[in-house]
Amino acid sequence: MNTPNERLATWLCIAGLGPGDEALVTPEVSHALAQATDVLGYIPYVARVAPRPGLTLHPSDNREELDRARAALALAAQGRRVVVVSSGDPGVFAMAAAVFEALEGRPDWQQLDVRVLPGVTAMLAAAARAGAPLGHDFCVINLSDNLKPQSLIEKRVQAAAGADMAMAFYNPRSASRPHTFERVLQLLREACEPERLLIFARAVSTPHEQLRCVSLAQAQADMADMRTLVIVGSSTTRRVGRFVYTPRSAS
Amino acid sequence: MNTPNERLATWLCIAGLGPGDEALVTPEVSHALAQATDVLGYIPYVARVAPRPGLTLHPSDNREELDRARAALALAAQGRRVVVVSSGDPGVFAMAAAVFEALEGRPDWQQLDVRVLPGVTAMLAAAARAGAPLGHDFCVINLSDNLKPQSLIEKRVQAAAGADMAMAFYNPRSASRPHTFERVLQLLREACEPERLLIFARAVSTPHEQLRCVSLAQAQADMADMRTLVIVGSSTTRRVGRFVYTPRSAS
Repeated sequence: MNTPNERLATWLCIAGLGPGDEALVTPEVSHALAQATDVLGYIPYVARVAPRPGLTLHPSDNREELDRARAALALAAQGRRVVVVSSGDPGVFAMAAAVFEALEGRPDWQQLDVRVLPGVTAMLAAAARAGAPLGHDFCVINLSDNLKPQSLIEKRVQAAAGADMAMAFYNPRSASRPHTFERVLQLLREACEPERLLIFARAVSTPHEQLRCVSLAQAQADMADMRTLVIVGSSTTRRVGRFVYTPRSAS
Repeated sequence: MNTPNERLATWLCIAGLGPGDEALVTPEVSHALAQATDVLGYIPYVARVAPRPGLTLHPSDNREELDRARAALALAAQGRRVVVVSSGDPGVFAMAAAVFEALEGRPDWQQLDVRVLPGVTAMLAAAARAGAPLGHDFCVINLSDNLKPQSLIEKRVQAAAGADMAMAFYNPRSASRPHTFERVLQLLREACEPERLLIFARAVSTPHEQLRCVSLAQAQADMADMRTLVIVGSSTTRRVGRFVYTPRSAS
């Protein structure tokens, strides 16, 4: 079991809570949370962890990932048992990369017992709800341009479309940057047929879940927000009954 | 909870068992298995399900996915509670697409209560063990040429490398087709610098787990077999201490 070494007094786990439903939290993550003295993370994710005596919750705002990672490592270095929580999987556009970034230049922290506990990332939950749209080769692209230029996003979407891969878009759209996703839709319209299928999956496995499947011709940028995971099918992606899937065969 | 509707007498779930460790099986999947009358799947995956009275196990050979899917649907149509098991996540190069393929032309089966229960797919477990190599945009490519031409595999690898995305390769190499992965390594050597990092993750979370991180210059095709998940970093992927990660920033 990939849980922290319980003989060691101190450890740090970066744990994925899955997309929202408690039934999608792995036993490994539940076990780590049960052993922790401190839980750090973005406010709504920490809110998913039940308070108990001996556990200190440290919710913090979004866009403070590196500070949060350093605070978590400092706590572990002080002998605490620390869990940094992400939604979905911590390795996919989430806290794991920030923790490793915080280890740069800190050989002392690099000696800590640091482990990543995987989880069900949003695209897998969204795909499962829709059918199997990621049943063949696909690309996974974060549309947030906070940490990369929009030109790189465009290049990657064009490469994926040119090689006829399905796509999963994380963080497709926010109020502060409504135009990136509009531009991506425009690129898709230039590269793909109007019948291409898109899935807008919002807050999957939560009470606010919404799932919509439309053609590229029907797709509009405001069908997505920051809680939406967008899946773009490949040229072979099709409907069968109420489901959408990408056949295993490419031809 | 995305479990089958228990008021209905009959259902079919396509469930992901995760990469191997029982602590990575979601409670949702465990619950479905506890309710099932029949479990179908590839022999080693069905072997992971504990026998019990009232449960019939139907192990079958590999490469029989479509027959297995039809058998599962026929059982559900007869009023059984059926789980089709995959390792990892059922929607990523696994049984979900085969079940939807089997629904084509069968409006009777399309009325069944069919659900996909997501799981921790191999690339997430492998990435977690290594650090966070999939912390930025990436592509997911099945290197098996059973169901697609090798030319399409090559095109997708070149597109991913050209747009500087990390890559996760499923089914990189088998005894019957040892040359595809050699060709992919050759394409990577043409497109990427020799220091590019590759991770060979075999049987992650099982007692047979092996993890190796090498540079592209050091990589050899026989480092992979069918139980290996290969991750190729992007140009920014780097080591920190004993970990490998891809920074959140592209620059």
